[in-house]
Amino acid sequence: MAVDYQPPQCLSRPIEVPSKLLMGAGPSNAAENVLKAGSLPLLGHLHTEFTQIMDDVKQGIQYAFQTTNTLTLAISGTGHAGMEAALCNLIERNDVVLIGINGIWGERAADMANRQGADVQTVTKVAGENFSLADIEAALLQHKPAVLFLAQGESSTGVVQPIEGFGALCTKHNCLLLVDTVASLGGEPFYMDRWQVDVVYTGSQKVLGAPPGTAPISFGPRAVAKIAGRKTPISSFYFDMNWLGNYWGCDSQPRKYHHTAPISSIYALREALALLANEGLENSWNRHRQSRDRLISGLAKLNLKPLASEPAARLTCITAIRVPDGVDWKSVTTHAMSMRVEIAGGLGPTAGRIWRVGLMGQNATDERVDRVLEVLAESIKSATTPVTVMGRL
Amino acid sequence: MAVDYQPPQCLSRPIEVPSKLLMGAGPSNAAENVLKAGSLPLLGHLHTEFTQIMDDVKQGIQYAFQTTNTLTLAISGTGHAGMEAALCNLIERNDVVLIGINGIWGERAADMANRQGADVQTVTKVAGENFSLADIEAALLQHKPAVLFLAQGESSTGVVQPIEGFGALCTKHNCLLLVDTVASLGGEPFYMDRWQVDVVYTGSQKVLGAPPGTAPISFGPRAVAKIAGRKTPISSFYFDMNWLGNYWGCDSQPRKYHHTAPISSIYALREALALLANEGLENSWNRHRQSRDRLISGLAKLNLKPLASEPAARLTCITAIRVPDGVDWKSVTTHAMSMRVEIAGGLGPTAGRIWRVGLMGQNATDERVDRVLEVLAESIKSATTPVTVMGRL
Repeated sequence: MAVDYQPPQCLSRPIEVPSKLLMGAGPSNAAENVLKAGSLPLLGHLHTEFTQIMDDVKQGIQYAFQTTNTLTLAISGTGHAGMEAALCNLIERNDVVLIGINGIWGERAADMANRQGADVQTVTKVAGENFSLADIEAALLQHKPAVLFLAQGESSTGVVQPIEGFGALCTKHNCLLLVDTVASLGGEPFYMDRWQVDVVYTGSQKVLGAPPGTAPISFGPRAVAKIAGRKTPISSFYFDMNWLGNYWGCDSQPRKYHHTAPISSIYALREALALLANEGLENSWNRHRQSRDRLISGLAKLNLKPLASEPAARLTCITAIRVPDGVDWKSVTTHAMSMRVEIAGGLGPTAGRIWRVGLMGQNATDERVDRVLEVLAESIKSATTPVTVMGRL
Repeated sequence: MAVDYQPPQCLSRPIEVPSKLLMGAGPSNAAENVLKAGSLPLLGHLHTEFTQIMDDVKQGIQYAFQTTNTLTLAISGTGHAGMEAALCNLIERNDVVLIGINGIWGERAADMANRQGADVQTVTKVAGENFSLADIEAALLQHKPAVLFLAQGESSTGVVQPIEGFGALCTKHNCLLLVDTVASLGGEPFYMDRWQVDVVYTGSQKVLGAPPGTAPISFGPRAVAKIAGRKTPISSFYFDMNWLGNYWGCDSQPRKYHHTAPISSIYALREALALLANEGLENSWNRHRQSRDRLISGLAKLNLKPLASEPAARLTCITAIRVPDGVDWKSVTTHAMSMRVEIAGGLGPTAGRIWRVGLMGQNATDERVDRVLEVLAESIKSATTPVTVMGRL
């Protein structure tokens, strides 16, 4: 039989992938051994050698989240898949879901919760600020939600949300606490059990420094009970934690075929978690804090200001920088990219107002902080419209 | 701050991944250059060099599906994610969805469609058989569905479903035709446009021979119109084809950030599609057919019979073999695995009754067919209870 359409010419060219310093909001650069693990030979999704690797990954995720929760695994998708998996398992139609919105992640969570048929309520802060316990308690009293969503790392504004104390508050108000740590895990202290967080997820491609494509997630006992008590089916088969928990050996049943895990991505995730375990969480937290502090000092010398005026509200992993008047933000990022250094612009509510510099995983070092400062300074210089030109108009 | 739980010991061991011949139902072995592409440096998900690679992938998928559909891309998940993406975009609550069930894939599709709130109707065949045009026309007349699901490659039974003629039939009955080609694409002729298929998806890890983790998918004009005419939101943000189509450059708008594509997996998929484009679809189809024919001849010499008694119903990519009386199927696959060759057991309705040998992508060669025959023969010999022993009981 003959084909109707011929092969595309573009696929006869070799693949071209330049090396860049990824100092935006993620993905960050991966370590060489993590990338190499991703090219090891494939195994079957239920082979003993592979389920052993899944077990290793599970233990690494428990460590990274600081939890002993049994229902802990990696979703076969990117960070957004983690968010969707958390929400679709927890939410039944008409459940009241309270979303903290101080940037794009709350907006995305609200979008997803709406699609699950939730009664979505919001509590908001302007870009650059975070929520206090009092803010949240007032909203819990007002809306009586079944689930509260907070993003620990609001990457669109460079803001960290304190989580300590919020779990106890939610328990008191009979609400589950769901925390997004995509842009913070490994770079900000996080204690799932100690802080009584009911569900948490992250992405592989930020501080963990693995390629994007897997989303570590964990459900605590109250969340497991909510799923067990559902009256309606979980809308997604792919993200159904009952199936996924079995496949990941989280129950006492033999592992059944649910889907084929992304084998190579799980290899890479294992090696990224091994790097974290080897360094130790405290060391990783300290390294990220020190890198961020060095960046903030360097920015001050360039007369650049972080978006978050309150120092305690600044995220270690991603710093949002106000674009000075008279500077075209886009010319700056374009110039930086021409030097093979990625600096991100704003996102959602902060688009056009800020740059974002990520210091995550392999990129949270003095050398890379100094390099991004150098490139930023040069790019601003190159992009700034001279005042004399403005005067002539 | 100190951690509550220490790093797991298991992550201090190096990762161990043996090389095996993956002759089960998939994943199949990937070519060396495909695996290597997966370890190239990471790029940002909206970098020009990466969107160029996405464009290449898109053209490769269009070629593989034999379509010019604009809304063609790779879902950031495995084959099951492709199935879920197809169903959740097409289905609105109470839509009648007709599912052809002759193995596990129809069952899975019915499960997913139920979760979308569809009015699920089924048309069934016993394991080893497929559907005729008359079977389907009768069911279309009876149920008047909005969507019909068929699996071209029913991997649990080794059966191929003819697709030619079914698209025209569905159009006549005002129904969309959705086809699963996870276990067939590249190994069985498939013409999306010529056969008027409205939606098709596949997985990366079978004939294409890339690591699992991406699911090529395409929507034709009638399917696009169904999505555009929806009265309710798509239940999944992650799989929302409006967002995904924009990210993949399928509309005339600038690409917006939807999610972070699995960068490394997309590199590998590009290289796998390049191998297919270089070989040519017709050559790939012929190679898979010849390998399957060689396997069937070899099986006959071992007195082994395919599950599908009708030769035309036999899938090229995966052959289901009846387990002879007196042979413990599990001992055979365990013995084969000890020789580092994977042979699969049955799945769902065929569990315990058959073995499945996959000849996909890199594994559809004379040499590997001969090797799997050799290993199968030896494993059966090793696992068979000698008749003399039975006699003594």
